[in-house]
Amino acid sequence: MSEVSFEIAGVPIEATFAEAFDMKATRLVITADDRQWCRDACAAMCGFGTSVIACGIEIAVEQELSPEATPDGRPGAAILAFAVSGKELEKQIPRRAGQCLLTCPTTAAYAGIVGGRDVHSKRVPLGKTLRYFGDGMQISKVIRQTRLDLDQNEVAQDVRYWRIPVMDGEFVCEHDVARVDAVGGGNFILMGRSMQSVTKACRAAVDAIRPLSGVITPFPGGTTRSGSKVGSKYPALFASTNEAYCPTLRNVVESRLPEGTNAVLEIVLDGMNADSIAHAMDAGIRAACMSVGDAGLTGVSAGNYGGKLGRHHFHLHEILKGGA
Amino acid sequence: MSEVSFEIAGVPIEATFAEAFDMKATRLVITADDRQWCRDACAAMCGFGTSVIACGIEIAVEQELSPEATPDGRPGAAILAFAVSGKELEKQIPRRAGQCLLTCPTTAAYAGIVGGRDVHSKRVPLGKTLRYFGDGMQISKVIRQTRLDLDQNEVAQDVRYWRIPVMDGEFVCEHDVARVDAVGGGNFILMGRSMQSVTKACRAAVDAIRPLSGVITPFPGGTTRSGSKVGSKYPALFASTNEAYCPTLRNVVESRLPEGTNAVLEIVLDGMNADSIAHAMDAGIRAACMSVGDAGLTGVSAGNYGGKLGRHHFHLHEILKGGA
Amino acid sequence: MSEVSFEIAGVPIEATFAEAFDMKATRLVITADDRQWCRDACAAMCGFGTSVIACGIEIAVEQELSPEATPDGRPGAAILAFAVSGKELEKQIPRRAGQCLLTCPTTAAYAGIVGGRDVHSKRVPLGKTLRYFGDGMQISKVIRQTRLDLDQNEVAQDVRYWRIPVMDGEFVCEHDVARVDAVGGGNFILMGRSMQSVTKACRAAVDAIRPLSGVITPFPGGTTRSGSKVGSKYPALFASTNEAYCPTLRNVVESRLPEGTNAVLEIVLDGMNADSIAHAMDAGIRAACMSVGDAGLTGVSAGNYGGKLGRHHFHLHEILKGGA
Amino acid sequence: MSEVSFEIAGVPIEATFAEAFDMKATRLVITADDRQWCRDACAAMCGFGTSVIACGIEIAVEQELSPEATPDGRPGAAILAFAVSGKELEKQIPRRAGQCLLTCPTTAAYAGIVGGRDVHSKRVPLGKTLRYFGDGMQISKVIRQTRLDLDQNEVAQDVRYWRIPVMDGEFVCEHDVARVDAVGGGNFILMGRSMQSVTKACRAAVDAIRPLSGVITPFPGGTTRSGSKVGSKYPALFASTNEAYCPTLRNVVESRLPEGTNAVLEIVLDGMNADSIAHAMDAGIRAACMSVGDAGLTGVSAGNYGGKLGRHHFHLHEILKGGA
Repeated sequence: MSEVSFEIAGVPIEATFAEAFDMKATRLVITADDRQWCRDACAAMCGFGTSVIACGIEIAVEQELSPEATPDGRPGAAILAFAVSGKELEKQIPRRAGQCLLTCPTTAAYAGIVGGRDVHSKRVPLGKTLRYFGDGMQISKVIRQTRLDLDQNEVAQDVRYWRIPVMDGEFVCEHDVARVDAVGGGNFILMGRSMQSVTKACRAAVDAIRPLSGVITPFPGGTTRSGSKVGSKYPALFASTNEAYCPTLRNVVESRLPEGTNAVLEIVLDGMNADSIAHAMDAGIRAACMSVGDAGLTGVSAGNYGGKLGRHHFHLHEILKGGA
Repeated sequence: MSEVSFEIAGVPIEATFAEAFDMKATRLVITADDRQWCRDACAAMCGFGTSVIACGIEIAVEQELSPEATPDGRPGAAILAFAVSGKELEKQIPRRAGQCLLTCPTTAAYAGIVGGRDVHSKRVPLGKTLRYFGDGMQISKVIRQTRLDLDQNEVAQDVRYWRIPVMDGEFVCEHDVARVDAVGGGNFILMGRSMQSVTKACRAAVDAIRPLSGVITPFPGGTTRSGSKVGSKYPALFASTNEAYCPTLRNVVESRLPEGTNAVLEIVLDGMNADSIAHAMDAGIRAACMSVGDAGLTGVSAGNYGGKLGRHHFHLHEILKGGA
Repeated sequence: MSEVSFEIAGVPIEATFAEAFDMKATRLVITADDRQWCRDACAAMCGFGTSVIACGIEIAVEQELSPEATPDGRPGAAILAFAVSGKELEKQIPRRAGQCLLTCPTTAAYAGIVGGRDVHSKRVPLGKTLRYFGDGMQISKVIRQTRLDLDQNEVAQDVRYWRIPVMDGEFVCEHDVARVDAVGGGNFILMGRSMQSVTKACRAAVDAIRPLSGVITPFPGGTTRSGSKVGSKYPALFASTNEAYCPTLRNVVESRLPEGTNAVLEIVLDGMNADSIAHAMDAGIRAACMSVGDAGLTGVSAGNYGGKLGRHHFHLHEILKGGA
Repeated sequence: MSEVSFEIAGVPIEATFAEAFDMKATRLVITADDRQWCRDACAAMCGFGTSVIACGIEIAVEQELSPEATPDGRPGAAILAFAVSGKELEKQIPRRAGQCLLTCPTTAAYAGIVGGRDVHSKRVPLGKTLRYFGDGMQISKVIRQTRLDLDQNEVAQDVRYWRIPVMDGEFVCEHDVARVDAVGGGNFILMGRSMQSVTKACRAAVDAIRPLSGVITPFPGGTTRSGSKVGSKYPALFASTNEAYCPTLRNVVESRLPEGTNAVLEIVLDGMNADSIAHAMDAGIRAACMSVGDAGLTGVSAGNYGGKLGRHHFHLHEILKGGA
């Protein structure tokens, strides 16, 4: 166990760091005729999107958008998606959009971030790919628009929209969307005295992270129990259970669990940049510790690989230094 | 437009049929410590599962199960999954279970249907594949159990369970689950005077189908707007928009839409057998027609390919003949 | 603490009984154009309906109804309401219906139980009272109908419906609804080692009771923490906290809490008859015990007043005797 | 019909005004151990709270609060409540809190607004009344705290908290909460070509208002269909259906419905001040018009009594003048 230098609500915070990785990300804005269709579309679009390992992308709703905040004045939602490469993003997004948005009554799909449109800019196709479903009867139009980029600067762009004939009228879909450099795999680990207490702490953390911008927690309910280590005794597998954090194995292996730990959960975060992740880790860890204190949690840790695999190191003590 | 021979609530029902296909299906029972984790797991497991075309499988919750109705007395849900081949099912189910159930706190996964366990029986792996995540520390046990098969006959079986160490304790997972012959692609098409009226009719249909056993409606919100025909002017595509049902194209192409039709939605159904689909089509069409009548719907149709591609033909008039 | 004679999942079940009371009850069926309006109506109608002490009635959704199961083929829900007297029910139901159903877009209100219509039958007014909102422009019609009574016998009745003009068309409302003798105040008490474990046990119990017919759990989330005793040191109050079940007072008062108890919750049940309550108590207690076992619960008890106030005594051991 | 001077999305906005009333309001902050208990508490607390006419108060959730935004770092929600007099508020709030918060596991109740604490300040009792449930075993403590008032100025106050022993530990409850002058009965009326189109417009409006601060829409689903006029042909009633807005009566009475109107809904708003209501009316009307345009809505109006009953007049054209 790493050196412990401070506590929140009595819960020791380990002097360790979360190791995160460079990823590629994009942001979509989905709208629909009413809130229910919008949620139906998001549920389909964001399911089976917990981990890049076998889902291709990590994808979740960033926030719901009121009609005032969407391009077409309808109820909407912003979705963030992350992949290990731009190429994978370019493959997965149109595939999912074709199965989950093109199909969903009344939805439209827009770029949720602005990027350059010169020939060198990397972009993720939307209508560019989906238009062919129109069988030649699709129509496109280019409109000069001014939008805000990620730094809130106004950017004027020529934006191409596609109108693809479907049974409820037309599926309106922007031609493509920017992709940007982002960070995946931020995390923190909640070690608890019982499953009930770590459940409560974990849900408090996810609840605190939910309203934040630029970050998602893509695992089921925002969390995972299947912490993994690199490698396995089975040569074909490149990852396996991290036995050092498995309570049932504490007498069998070299455990990293503090005394009294009976259940552990990990919150994994993907963010549009490192600041988004750091801010969310701060909010989430504080909420978790406050929710159950040291009667519920035995400690907070974070997952890393010795710092050699991922470029981004989120040191818990630095992130939380604003006060404990 | 096909010959119209009768009406429900004034809505003409076309004398046509839905053409459906042989598929392979399985049924999982998921349980969790509380209802919320169970729903989190199902949302992840069943997302991006609208169509076999690019999702691999069509998958959705069949029904929630109260603790009395689950193998371990915890809140649960039954999930149905369909694929075009047993092989695809064998590939997709463990992949999804690994990303969405193994990861989700407190869940366990059980076979939801009984099948033979002799060497010739085809089965879909669960723990058989997922156990390797345990890195050699997993444990299995075989228990002699009596269960009900699909015909409600008691069947005694040796059932193998795996206990895979994870951070919240152990992921309990049955070794595998039977797969059975099933039917996919049952459907009916609601043609409406406005998007609002067809939305209302469609939601009434999905609401009526939801409590039924053995059937799911895997598209977003239970429905799709992207009706398709076989073939495309683009050689690489094997399907494209069915322009005969697109309201915006009615003056451009040979339309199959009745006078006054401005929006169309299709409910697609997958069932454990043909009876499940026929019963659900009956319930759904009636609910749709009753909900808006002929002031809202201009007709009910169904999708087929001339009867040459799919072995199962659900004739609307026969299904509904119980009374109109 | 009462004598303990047996256990479920290791949890001692006290040899005591729940004391319940004669109440008057009715059952409404609400329908609406779509599921969302129906839920909006039920949420309004059933709020602030936890206890007859200051809410007037105890009221909650018994079950959602699919379109096939409602009088007008629309999505619906059945609501149960209980009061200490028929008079109170006659006062509260039309008041709530006027504020929560008459106002809610697209809803209709029907009798959910059949009773006699001769002059001596006691009935709860619906349209009988609400019609006056129509300011003389309301219309009524009597239709001869055959319905099922509580014993599933067919009963032919003349049923009066009111059509009250409102801004979305007409509010359709049955003239009145039967009221029947019923039972209120069935209960069981879950004593736990921590708030987290008793929360989990309690939610498992409520989840198991939810699908059952003829019974509701009207407190928030189906449960209450404010167990009370008759009387108070303040003369004006007829009830106050039951200190014998308060964990923070265990060293100050004569506690009835088993060793190791740190949190207690009570599930209160109202049923259309004693059997409904007994069956729900059985299902609920089993689910609670199974969910956390004796690592989570220190015991299950029930609330009574020595058997002198309520006519109905639900002995835990008898209810659960079907097997432990 | 009033003079029409401009349109939004083709929908005529009548040159009329909403007439609103002085009311008394308060704001509570509820927290709980997890999001689910918090929602359970709010559902109970805010039900049957659509109209002061027979509910006593109009009450609804203003917004959910993340753990960072609550006094005790737990998941929470802010609730707004309005009554015709301070006295009514003083009666209804502790009654509801006693039935819905004191009873609900793990909840705490705090003042959501700051007001003066000198002897002349009017306050609504919380713990001041509820403490007696503790039967003498309750404990209070005064803490000096700095909070933000409605103008975001820091105010230092001595705040009294009560700890009332209950079965899950202690119910923490602030002694009382300020009440302030507020505005009730802001409104706008959506007139539509069909129930489906006005449903869609209405839900878009409610969706747009939901995230706004200082305002609630207390009717079921945020809306009402039972628009009323003052007076009735029945002497005992002081209000009855507003036949001028009832589509089924348009050929019988002097109708105020534009040509082509078949369904009408009204959104009623209560706000902490006039600005909150004006801003919400602006956002709601725009969202409604944008969602269906003049194909769905025939006009937008507002309810008033000639300006003689309520002091606050919200002229639609002024509110919307920011641009159409």
